[in-house]
Amino acid sequence: MTETPTDDRRTANGIIYLVGAGPGDPELLTVKAQRLLEEADVILHDKLSGPDILAQIDEDRLEDVGTRGHGDTTPQSYVNERMVELAREGKEVVRLKGGDPTVFGRGGEEMAYLADAGVPFEVVPGITSAIAGPQVAGIPVTHRDHASTFSVVTGHEDPNKPESAVDWEALAETGGTIVVLMGVGRLPEYTASLMEAGMDPDTPVALVERATWPDQQVATGTVETIPEVAEEVGIEPPAVTVIGEVAGTRAEVLDFLQ
Amino acid sequence: MTETPTDDRRTANGIIYLVGAGPGDPELLTVKAQRLLEEADVILHDKLSGPDILAQIDEDRLEDVGTRGHGDTTPQSYVNERMVELAREGKEVVRLKGGDPTVFGRGGEEMAYLADAGVPFEVVPGITSAIAGPQVAGIPVTHRDHASTFSVVTGHEDPNKPESAVDWEALAETGGTIVVLMGVGRLPEYTASLMEAGMDPDTPVALVERATWPDQQVATGTVETIPEVAEEVGIEPPAVTVIGEVAGTRAEVLDFLQ
Repeated sequence: MTETPTDDRRTANGIIYLVGAGPGDPELLTVKAQRLLEEADVILHDKLSGPDILAQIDEDRLEDVGTRGHGDTTPQSYVNERMVELAREGKEVVRLKGGDPTVFGRGGEEMAYLADAGVPFEVVPGITSAIAGPQVAGIPVTHRDHASTFSVVTGHEDPNKPESAVDWEALAETGGTIVVLMGVGRLPEYTASLMEAGMDPDTPVALVERATWPDQQVATGTVETIPEVAEEVGIEPPAVTVIGEVAGTRAEVLDFLQ
Repeated sequence: MTETPTDDRRTANGIIYLVGAGPGDPELLTVKAQRLLEEADVILHDKLSGPDILAQIDEDRLEDVGTRGHGDTTPQSYVNERMVELAREGKEVVRLKGGDPTVFGRGGEEMAYLADAGVPFEVVPGITSAIAGPQVAGIPVTHRDHASTFSVVTGHEDPNKPESAVDWEALAETGGTIVVLMGVGRLPEYTASLMEAGMDPDTPVALVERATWPDQQVATGTVETIPEVAEEVGIEPPAVTVIGEVAGTRAEVLDFLQ
């Protein structure tokens, strides 16, 4: 049960830190992430790491390896190989990811690739917008009276595909809060799936666009109305969708939420 | 759709910051939490805020209002009233909670109480051990090959109670990762519930005790074996249980996880 890390197969003197950047506000970096960003030789970042965070780092240490939405501008294989290459040059590298590195961030795949290549790494958690997004809009993902579970999914997947890995029916069945990351594009499809699965069309829903960014925007409605509301308000990616009774508590606290 | 906070009913010149302390490592505080802990007049903390974090704060600003497990040492009503009292004295108060304030942290209830009392507040997210716990043990809660959703529940509830709010069957049905917070005590009950719901008894499970604390401890097994393993290894609360295929990826990365 107790394992001692060994480095017999180690191939690099450098190290990779897989670091979560949080939702975008530089003050929501962890103290550790901020220290590593100051110390690192190279920072490989994606497009969701937050412009205000990247602006604090001198450009000659930044490498953009970003992917966004469906357009994979940089193949994952390039990022993997670049990390190994830099670590073998003895570099201390931060691989910076928006949110948390293991919440739909391919952190698991990168960990496995690095271990397989014999490259030491450490994972530094970040504030995920799955929780912080609803929160800064006044919505707790759990609540003793309203939700004793919460589930997080990605909206990138097409819920109409027969091979869809997301079981919307089971999610609706949990009775808990459902948080959808990157889920603006397919909002009409998965709200329909949830109603088909028996979810009350009046269940409250909130959309939080660019949570904690200076241009944060919130829109509220129900499972039935939210696709129309999103269009009216002009909600654009990246945004978090929070579905469940908790989304209805926002109105009670809004006047005193700073 | 656009709301402007008003303060017509404001009753206090102070402010309450509901702040997440993260899992315990002081470097996993956010930059904002660290700043607020330095600036605040009073810090109302619970018992899960991490001894190393509390040790950095001068004692005369600390007030222990902790509750832990089933023994509510301080009633929630006392905490609520104390926050309002201090805010009305004009104090800048940090209400510090282990992990994140809105993940089973009664943050939602405290927000509602403060708003109802006319007291301004702000919520500052923290790193939740629901994600960071598995992660520091080498386990990503999501993975393209293994889990396209993750669900978080609390283990405090008795799954045998007919009125249990946690639907273990629906959770098993999602096919995603299940993370149970504070779930050591009832491990035998809910692993049985999951197997009854049709979960493969060989599904990997990991327990992470005191994630990121100096005495962190990890134990691994399956849904069937983990209650026995937990007893053998001597896993004690607070611990996070992570259930699902992702828990099996730990072995692949362990040698290079720093």
